[in-house]
Amino acid sequence: MNKKTAIYPGTFDPVTFGHIDVLERAAKIFDKVIISVAKSSSKDALFSIKERTELIKKVTVKLKNVEIDVFEGLLVKYAVKKNAGVIIRGLRAISDFEFEFQMALTNRKISPEIETIFLMPNEKYSYISSTLVKEIGAYGGNLSSFVPKIVSEKLKEKFKKKRL
Amino acid sequence: MNKKTAIYPGTFDPVTFGHIDVLERAAKIFDKVIISVAKSSSKDALFSIKERTELIKKVTVKLKNVEIDVFEGLLVKYAVKKNAGVIIRGLRAISDFEFEFQMALTNRKISPEIETIFLMPNEKYSYISSTLVKEIGAYGGNLSSFVPKIVSEKLKEKFKKKRL
Amino acid sequence: MNKKTAIYPGTFDPVTFGHIDVLERAAKIFDKVIISVAKSSSKDALFSIKERTELIKKVTVKLKNVEIDVFEGLLVKYAVKKNAGVIIRGLRAISDFEFEFQMALTNRKISPEIETIFLMPNEKYSYISSTLVKEIGAYGGNLSSFVPKIVSEKLKEKFKKKRL
Amino acid sequence: MNKKTAIYPGTFDPVTFGHIDVLERAAKIFDKVIISVAKSSSKDALFSIKERTELIKKVTVKLKNVEIDVFEGLLVKYAVKKNAGVIIRGLRAISDFEFEFQMALTNRKISPEIETIFLMPNEKYSYISSTLVKEIGAYGGNLSSFVPKIVSEKLKEKFKKKRL
Amino acid sequence: MNKKTAIYPGTFDPVTFGHIDVLERAAKIFDKVIISVAKSSSKDALFSIKERTELIKKVTVKLKNVEIDVFEGLLVKYAVKKNAGVIIRGLRAISDFEFEFQMALTNRKISPEIETIFLMPNEKYSYISSTLVKEIGAYGGNLSSFVPKIVSEKLKEKFKKKRL
Amino acid sequence: MNKKTAIYPGTFDPVTFGHIDVLERAAKIFDKVIISVAKSSSKDALFSIKERTELIKKVTVKLKNVEIDVFEGLLVKYAVKKNAGVIIRGLRAISDFEFEFQMALTNRKISPEIETIFLMPNEKYSYISSTLVKEIGAYGGNLSSFVPKIVSEKLKEKFKKKRL
Repeated sequence: MNKKTAIYPGTFDPVTFGHIDVLERAAKIFDKVIISVAKSSSKDALFSIKERTELIKKVTVKLKNVEIDVFEGLLVKYAVKKNAGVIIRGLRAISDFEFEFQMALTNRKISPEIETIFLMPNEKYSYISSTLVKEIGAYGGNLSSFVPKIVSEKLKEKFKKKRL
Repeated sequence: MNKKTAIYPGTFDPVTFGHIDVLERAAKIFDKVIISVAKSSSKDALFSIKERTELIKKVTVKLKNVEIDVFEGLLVKYAVKKNAGVIIRGLRAISDFEFEFQMALTNRKISPEIETIFLMPNEKYSYISSTLVKEIGAYGGNLSSFVPKIVSEKLKEKFKKKRL
Repeated sequence: MNKKTAIYPGTFDPVTFGHIDVLERAAKIFDKVIISVAKSSSKDALFSIKERTELIKKVTVKLKNVEIDVFEGLLVKYAVKKNAGVIIRGLRAISDFEFEFQMALTNRKISPEIETIFLMPNEKYSYISSTLVKEIGAYGGNLSSFVPKIVSEKLKEKFKKKRL
Repeated sequence: MNKKTAIYPGTFDPVTFGHIDVLERAAKIFDKVIISVAKSSSKDALFSIKERTELIKKVTVKLKNVEIDVFEGLLVKYAVKKNAGVIIRGLRAISDFEFEFQMALTNRKISPEIETIFLMPNEKYSYISSTLVKEIGAYGGNLSSFVPKIVSEKLKEKFKKKRL
Repeated sequence: MNKKTAIYPGTFDPVTFGHIDVLERAAKIFDKVIISVAKSSSKDALFSIKERTELIKKVTVKLKNVEIDVFEGLLVKYAVKKNAGVIIRGLRAISDFEFEFQMALTNRKISPEIETIFLMPNEKYSYISSTLVKEIGAYGGNLSSFVPKIVSEKLKEKFKKKRL
Repeated sequence: MNKKTAIYPGTFDPVTFGHIDVLERAAKIFDKVIISVAKSSSKDALFSIKERTELIKKVTVKLKNVEIDVFEGLLVKYAVKKNAGVIIRGLRAISDFEFEFQMALTNRKISPEIETIFLMPNEKYSYISSTLVKEIGAYGGNLSSFVPKIVSEKLKEKFKKKRL
């Protein structure tokens, strides 16, 4: 398994400044980072898998060693298929940590050759979550501190349609 | 924004001794406290918004500087509209804390002029939640340590109807 | 209330190595341990109450002082009915702890004569949950580190049917 | 190892209502409970090992199946010597939990035949610690909610001498 | 007890941006805030009680309703003497929370008429502690993100003397 | 700063299976890993800086891209001097996490070009600490599950001398 290739998995519904911050840090450490957008939770998603990957593409255009991909099924099986030896996770808070710890230990048991590493986003993004962003967007709150402009515009559009 | 007026937001489905304890503490510190009952989560609620506000009215009748109101949408926007400079939250446990921290930091980013303060209920109420109260009520458990008598009677009535 | 009889309640959907580990520890301390399978959450369960109890029966056959039972309604009322003075809970992690603490204090308030005690599974099972097991099973992952062989076969069968 | 005999180890400098609460719960579950006062930390202790055991003796006089003993060295080795198959620990809060978890897993690795079980004190004692009690006592604060009368008198005496 | 007067206690060895942030928030809510510098831990302090209060005076000069005072002994007794009905604490993280919870519940038991409220500093100060500041200062690290200029100069001076 | 070179700092008094596990994981991800033994806490250390580095040398002899070094002063300044762009930390538990989070954010503020990444040791080492190892060793407990044989022998020798 190539330990210079890492995957950064998530739902990214939508991508936030927190995700981008973690991604930029990972891209400096690894030769290649694959953002892997989870298909599985699509039915509850606000954005389609296509919309989500397109938003990521636009906001990560400057990161040359970053690749965008879509996956479903077991993350570690997918990692093996991509020959990626490392899974990257952002750590924001205690509750995160518990869940992440459990996931990482489970993944290790299934595929011991895949390593999970944790990166810490800038503290100013440490409380941002896609869920909160959608809630604020639904009520017309200002999103400029949470997501890139292109994402907040897409969110506004989305909620305008929903209200019609 | 008036920092002598505070809002105490929640679903209050139904109001518990824990809520009342926090409210009484807040009412001693602030000139006015507005209990703001969230409309938004009404569909999953056991009690209607009208039932919830009426129960609160009855159990807070002795608190002279407390006002009851209903809100929907972004909490901080609502606070601005009410000219209330402070949001009050009860802190019961770690899991609470994580969530509350995230909410408070998000709210601050949207409206920096609104301050969130945390109060600790009496430790004998520290484990009470409306969710647990409803579960115990559904199975006919004794609720006298968790909610005022008028609330436990209303709960009994509610579950009797449900079973019919 | 008999403090030599303990109940070990749960959904057990399905039973894991973690559950069995806690059970074996409890069976050494108490004269009788009743595994009490919760009916209440059956609708969201993958396995029926009958399937769940049968799997438990097969994997606990060597534990002579262990009895299997089914319950619904308030756990403490059920404990009183079974004349069991102790409730056993496994403690795996922080998030567990918060929830367990709240449940135990609530149960104690309703029935002070029932004591909750906590046991720690072997650390190699500390991250296993029935939910994760079902997720891994759904995607055809290897379950041999998480559940007994008979359970993993039943899971495979279940998911095969689901896909048809 | 006898799983009907449990040891309840600690420094007990001095014994508090929290300790007594845990002890009473344990005494209902086990045939014999040995309160094992740790000698090792005596040099930092306010009370001598003799004073500590005497205070415990006085406040547990009604608990017939409780025995008081003194130990030093590895707890699990001591448990084996006493033929006690269970170690009892009180769980008060998260920070406790982390430390207790680590101790219990370490003890289990050294002596797998000794089981650690956790009991929860009444929530009204959940924040009491011997350290806080000594701090409050040192400044002449009222200790009646934290320790039995005989202990608070001994504390007053102790601090009076210290000031002379 | 006057609930419009609050005390903000601490060692302030030295005062950091985190302390100032909490203080500014408190000063908007209360009519008067008393910064109460604890004498008790002076022997382990880097700065004398006089140096600590002088630094606080200089960095809080613009806050008109803030008063600086020194205390020793039990905090709640001191609060009663100052006729201050509220204690203010900054909440930074989980570990903080546990300790703060315990202190606040203990203080409440001794003096139920004193209320503890918690404020959250800006997330960019959420990891600053006086201890870390002193460690970084001791090794000549840049302190401009952690403390006001006047404090970092005083720290440099202090450590220069120590090295001579 | 070279992001293919990582430092793994610590006191390593003495090195445990947990440290070795983290190190082996890091050595697969980075081109070079420097174990950096902290001089600063030497006075409270059981082993001298020379003994600690020699033990590490012996137990890491098979890891070809691992280098052993000694440092004092600010970790991030040292990392810059070594042209190492990454700091590695092992994450074992919640209490760890809080402290590690604070350290990492502080280090980032001082030297933003140094990234901290977190790795999770095997769960069977998740509760081992050098402090516990020394305590068990002091009382003659069996250390074979916690440290390599050469370390446990050195510990025995150390404590034999101490007793003479």
